[in-house]
Amino acid sequence: MNLLKQYISVRQHSVDICASLKTEDYVVQPIVDVSPPKWHLGHTTWFFETFILQPNCLNYKVFDPNYNFVFNSYYETVGARVIRTDRGNLSRPSVEDIYAYRKYVDAAIVDFLANTTIGKALQDLFVLGLNHEQQHQELLLTDIKYILGHNPLFPSIDIQLAEHEIYDNKTFLPVPEGIYEIGFEGEGFCFDNEQNRHKVYLQSYEIQQNLVTNAAYLAFIEDGGYEKFQYWHADGWEWVNRYKAKSPLYWHFVDEKWYSYTFEGLQKINPNQAVCHVNFYEASAFAAWKRMRLPTEAEWEVASQYFDWGQRWEWTNSAYLPYTGFQKATGAIGEYNGKFMVNQMVLRGGSVATPEGHSRNTYRNFFQPQHRWQFMGIRLAV
Amino acid sequence: MNLLKQYISVRQHSVDICASLKTEDYVVQPIVDVSPPKWHLGHTTWFFETFILQPNCLNYKVFDPNYNFVFNSYYETVGARVIRTDRGNLSRPSVEDIYAYRKYVDAAIVDFLANTTIGKALQDLFVLGLNHEQQHQELLLTDIKYILGHNPLFPSIDIQLAEHEIYDNKTFLPVPEGIYEIGFEGEGFCFDNEQNRHKVYLQSYEIQQNLVTNAAYLAFIEDGGYEKFQYWHADGWEWVNRYKAKSPLYWHFVDEKWYSYTFEGLQKINPNQAVCHVNFYEASAFAAWKRMRLPTEAEWEVASQYFDWGQRWEWTNSAYLPYTGFQKATGAIGEYNGKFMVNQMVLRGGSVATPEGHSRNTYRNFFQPQHRWQFMGIRLAV
Amino acid sequence: MNLLKQYISVRQHSVDICASLKTEDYVVQPIVDVSPPKWHLGHTTWFFETFILQPNCLNYKVFDPNYNFVFNSYYETVGARVIRTDRGNLSRPSVEDIYAYRKYVDAAIVDFLANTTIGKALQDLFVLGLNHEQQHQELLLTDIKYILGHNPLFPSIDIQLAEHEIYDNKTFLPVPEGIYEIGFEGEGFCFDNEQNRHKVYLQSYEIQQNLVTNAAYLAFIEDGGYEKFQYWHADGWEWVNRYKAKSPLYWHFVDEKWYSYTFEGLQKINPNQAVCHVNFYEASAFAAWKRMRLPTEAEWEVASQYFDWGQRWEWTNSAYLPYTGFQKATGAIGEYNGKFMVNQMVLRGGSVATPEGHSRNTYRNFFQPQHRWQFMGIRLAV
Amino acid sequence: MNLLKQYISVRQHSVDICASLKTEDYVVQPIVDVSPPKWHLGHTTWFFETFILQPNCLNYKVFDPNYNFVFNSYYETVGARVIRTDRGNLSRPSVEDIYAYRKYVDAAIVDFLANTTIGKALQDLFVLGLNHEQQHQELLLTDIKYILGHNPLFPSIDIQLAEHEIYDNKTFLPVPEGIYEIGFEGEGFCFDNEQNRHKVYLQSYEIQQNLVTNAAYLAFIEDGGYEKFQYWHADGWEWVNRYKAKSPLYWHFVDEKWYSYTFEGLQKINPNQAVCHVNFYEASAFAAWKRMRLPTEAEWEVASQYFDWGQRWEWTNSAYLPYTGFQKATGAIGEYNGKFMVNQMVLRGGSVATPEGHSRNTYRNFFQPQHRWQFMGIRLAV
Repeated sequence: MNLLKQYISVRQHSVDICASLKTEDYVVQPIVDVSPPKWHLGHTTWFFETFILQPNCLNYKVFDPNYNFVFNSYYETVGARVIRTDRGNLSRPSVEDIYAYRKYVDAAIVDFLANTTIGKALQDLFVLGLNHEQQHQELLLTDIKYILGHNPLFPSIDIQLAEHEIYDNKTFLPVPEGIYEIGFEGEGFCFDNEQNRHKVYLQSYEIQQNLVTNAAYLAFIEDGGYEKFQYWHADGWEWVNRYKAKSPLYWHFVDEKWYSYTFEGLQKINPNQAVCHVNFYEASAFAAWKRMRLPTEAEWEVASQYFDWGQRWEWTNSAYLPYTGFQKATGAIGEYNGKFMVNQMVLRGGSVATPEGHSRNTYRNFFQPQHRWQFMGIRLAV
Repeated sequence: MNLLKQYISVRQHSVDICASLKTEDYVVQPIVDVSPPKWHLGHTTWFFETFILQPNCLNYKVFDPNYNFVFNSYYETVGARVIRTDRGNLSRPSVEDIYAYRKYVDAAIVDFLANTTIGKALQDLFVLGLNHEQQHQELLLTDIKYILGHNPLFPSIDIQLAEHEIYDNKTFLPVPEGIYEIGFEGEGFCFDNEQNRHKVYLQSYEIQQNLVTNAAYLAFIEDGGYEKFQYWHADGWEWVNRYKAKSPLYWHFVDEKWYSYTFEGLQKINPNQAVCHVNFYEASAFAAWKRMRLPTEAEWEVASQYFDWGQRWEWTNSAYLPYTGFQKATGAIGEYNGKFMVNQMVLRGGSVATPEGHSRNTYRNFFQPQHRWQFMGIRLAV
Repeated sequence: MNLLKQYISVRQHSVDICASLKTEDYVVQPIVDVSPPKWHLGHTTWFFETFILQPNCLNYKVFDPNYNFVFNSYYETVGARVIRTDRGNLSRPSVEDIYAYRKYVDAAIVDFLANTTIGKALQDLFVLGLNHEQQHQELLLTDIKYILGHNPLFPSIDIQLAEHEIYDNKTFLPVPEGIYEIGFEGEGFCFDNEQNRHKVYLQSYEIQQNLVTNAAYLAFIEDGGYEKFQYWHADGWEWVNRYKAKSPLYWHFVDEKWYSYTFEGLQKINPNQAVCHVNFYEASAFAAWKRMRLPTEAEWEVASQYFDWGQRWEWTNSAYLPYTGFQKATGAIGEYNGKFMVNQMVLRGGSVATPEGHSRNTYRNFFQPQHRWQFMGIRLAV
Repeated sequence: MNLLKQYISVRQHSVDICASLKTEDYVVQPIVDVSPPKWHLGHTTWFFETFILQPNCLNYKVFDPNYNFVFNSYYETVGARVIRTDRGNLSRPSVEDIYAYRKYVDAAIVDFLANTTIGKALQDLFVLGLNHEQQHQELLLTDIKYILGHNPLFPSIDIQLAEHEIYDNKTFLPVPEGIYEIGFEGEGFCFDNEQNRHKVYLQSYEIQQNLVTNAAYLAFIEDGGYEKFQYWHADGWEWVNRYKAKSPLYWHFVDEKWYSYTFEGLQKINPNQAVCHVNFYEASAFAAWKRMRLPTEAEWEVASQYFDWGQRWEWTNSAYLPYTGFQKATGAIGEYNGKFMVNQMVLRGGSVATPEGHSRNTYRNFFQPQHRWQFMGIRLAV
């Protein structure tokens, strides 16, 4: 697919995700990690305006000079910005303004692509911008879920996710000891953090063929998993006690039955779906209760050709650190990944909320261990 | 005016205030004290539904049983509620839903009033509900101002306030020593906290004829008033330092000139308007700098017949405490005033944001001393 | 008694209070409001060094120039200081150092008094310094009690307080309506906040002859007083819930019996002693439960000639505000009282921890409403 | 050396470290991470009482049953405990009590060892207890330094540390690509986290022969290192801004010269000493400024035979995670290491504060990245 088609297609997908939102749903920010949908729509647009149009398109006129302040996320290089906790306090720009902003920037990009021969560097930046927008498409879904799932009315909304059921939770795949290679190499896009491809030495291990199901996780809950410190990291145990955690995010125990919030409203737990919305502490505690462990990211990547993935982001027991030979890009784009390489854990795979074609088996997603509003699940190793 | 006409007129005024808001402006809550406009519209409606319709109107069907949880403000008697800090996290009920709610309740009330002979107690409750709605009309204005005035785009909006200019800031009116009476007595509505009317003994004093102007307050700023602890209460000095306060709320020093945010956007300070959006600490510090003081509420009330009031809520040096003989009402209505009688200071008068006919010279408004997002000003005594 | 004798006697009393402390007891600060005993001993000494010796005694050599930073409490006039929360982090100056400091300053004062004819202003300052030290003597007792009473070993210590039992909790004394005078006038020392003496108009009222007993308060607890919001101020109810308060400070429910920590260790509650260590919220809630109220400070002062006081500081329903004609002194001494005249409630009387001769019936003690580590109690009015 | 001799020698060393403290220095806890010296002395004793004497010595009578509550650090298995932030609020048990406690337990241990033939498991537990005490000996030194170094009097104290000067900061040692083994194997004590010994694959790298000096670090400061976000992790940059960090801990810029607090009081920075008291963020930012990086723990361990180590704990770029085959011990001892394996970075080597013989080149020390009150330094890799 050529760049112009790709651009139009990716940009349209963000708009499609939001098609059934009410204006009010675009605005709120119930916790600092959840951004208002309208902010995502503006921020991804700002990315193209700031990094593509402004430096490369001579006659481009900025849509509104105040938007840099509003829609910059964390790029220190690009100047001051609204602090993250304040995103939900902004009633303006309005949703209508932001859609106008999208149209304005899209028209300029289409015009630019139609009339310019662009070199490799700029093409790479375009592809980065599209991958960046796809990341925010996943965040749009997780943030919409958080906003509606924490509303006392538990509204349903017309968003479909392709969930598959799992019927075998016992099979483990063996991988022999030896030298393996991990990391990205070859044609196509990857993030800088997937490089360099390099050798690792792995001991023999076994990895679960399927994701841990709700039924399996429920057994952990019913065995008192959230009440026994033995299974938890010290920080995890503190998290359990501070938030009085008793189940994954969105679960509610009503009239002696477990329900969870989905885009269709509150629904009974499906025992055969992969458990979702657990954080690293919960994933680790579950593994400890099973007397197993989470795989490392190298183990996951090496074995990934033997199982299906893509229903959940899968917690690994690897911290998010640079691969050997990792180099930060210069300028603002260099702030994309490297500066987050501390205090985070790696997740691998992809989820029902990940845009098609966005992930690959070398993809390194990362979050702090307490987070669980993404579609995160568990695959065990031993 | 009969009750039905009054009801329709007061209810309509809330809607009128919001006429030029965008949907997004109804939703946000930038600080805990500022409620989203849609919450005010819902809460005032809930008041009539809960305290008038439900107990008195046999066939009344509640609009939505979840709304009690959403729109209860602080009435412990009436059950659990959304915690105050979370009001801005609710995208639903939507603005459209809430206007439907208003129409539904208004229709029921109109029908009820048309077909029922109501006794004194219920009539009093109606009048309380209307006064309650008027209080929220003032809050609507102050909260809209806060929401737009803290937006980096400083949007203007079509809301008019009747500001008068002041040209004399020096005249003081003398009041002789003696026994006076304060508090409400007679026909018409008053809040329970205005009673009982009782005797007080006042020493002779003088009180300023006009409110302190921006020009007068600017002299305080320019004399370093915010940098000299001598003028401040200990708590006030801590407030200055914590928030690095340098001027009233909404003031901005741009290119060596002072501007303030108004409903017309950022505007140059008008030296002849009454200073606005100062808290008790600022009012007291200004008075100390002038080697004067704030009046007590008794002094204010006794002298109020000799000057005009209504441009600003005027800070007094009286704490909000019960008058002699004060009795809390029973039930939820009893939570209206009495339980707030600690840690607050009394303001007297009214402001450009106060609905016409809502205030009177025995009216006791009250806020914690650090608040300044209301239209608060200063009148000196000596 | 002449000034020298008074000085020696007051200063010695501080040392006597600490006689049975272990060195470690002098050091800790379990909450911000409780200062380490060694800090009190140093601070009161610093007061005499800074305000008497340095400005008036030509050859006086400061004991240690760093001590101003360490022992200044809140006097902005006198320069930077250790922030209050950090007092318990200072292992140095040692207890030995501070006793040496006391001896050094005492010797200088004695020498100064023996060789100087001092004028009225300086004499007043001396008396203020002694009253200041007496205030810290009470704080020494309350802070020692807090330090030991919050230690899991509940140590006993050799400090005696003269508690009297109360056998009548029902008698109320009537006071007729009329004009009265309150405030200090005449010979002898008073704090600036007790002036001016002025007329007040009181409605008729009745005031309880004796303090509320533990037995009476226990009935409130057993009737669910801490679980019913109706009796509490909104801020009080928040306090109850935040701290899960169920009883006065130092009370423990062990094996179905109530105990309280005293200087003799944990002891069974004596039903006939005045309830102690309740805050304003608790005092008010108790009064509301009784369908009575707390007296105002004017009511208390007018009636005080008719009852005994001095077992507890008695919460009034008056906020701490300036009397008519109140004038702050100039300089550092002016920071003594005036700057605290907001957000505090007045207590009247005195307590078993108050040094003999320190209080009088015009004395205005004040604390924020949530505090209860002083020897605070309740006298009702109606 | 036999166990008894070892026991006596290690236990005596804790007492020796504290020999020149004043009683007050034993008591305070200026930040949550710094425990009062008396707590360390009690806690290490409690370890022997709880894990050795109580389960193994039939006639042993606990010194004081309350001490379990006071001196348990983080062992959930062993019951409730004083929360960590409260350790500095405890004036009792007194220093004298704790020394008595030590004597009592030491006598019981000596008696026990003299009269019992102990098996392998118990012997291992003894050795663990001694290593545990050695860890607290290092903490004693770092905590004493923090307590005195944050006192406004900057007291000196008679504690000697063996600092060596460094004159070459440029030499780097090359290590070729290949399979290496890391982890502990063989005779002697190691912590569970040093196992299993396992193969790793390393790319070729170079590692600095000597630690980074104060002179080298000063160049970073003078080049504006603390003001340029480019060198910092996002979390590190937030740390810099929150704490307004401008230099390593204990550094003070006085009269245009850099000083640092040492056990001899404030001293001029020695340019030829290894930089000390930097956290992971500072170490990483320094490395980024140098266009180099920190070594991984595997790189460090493999190369460690080629350089001297032991002046500073050296930050690596490895997160603290389990080695392949790591197994938690059962019971309370199992809480020693495994539960901390998240959110921490590994440090290797040892420091001037580490007891002789305590560390080894497989030793894995770990702290959260913001901590710097240990004797932490930097060795670069490339």
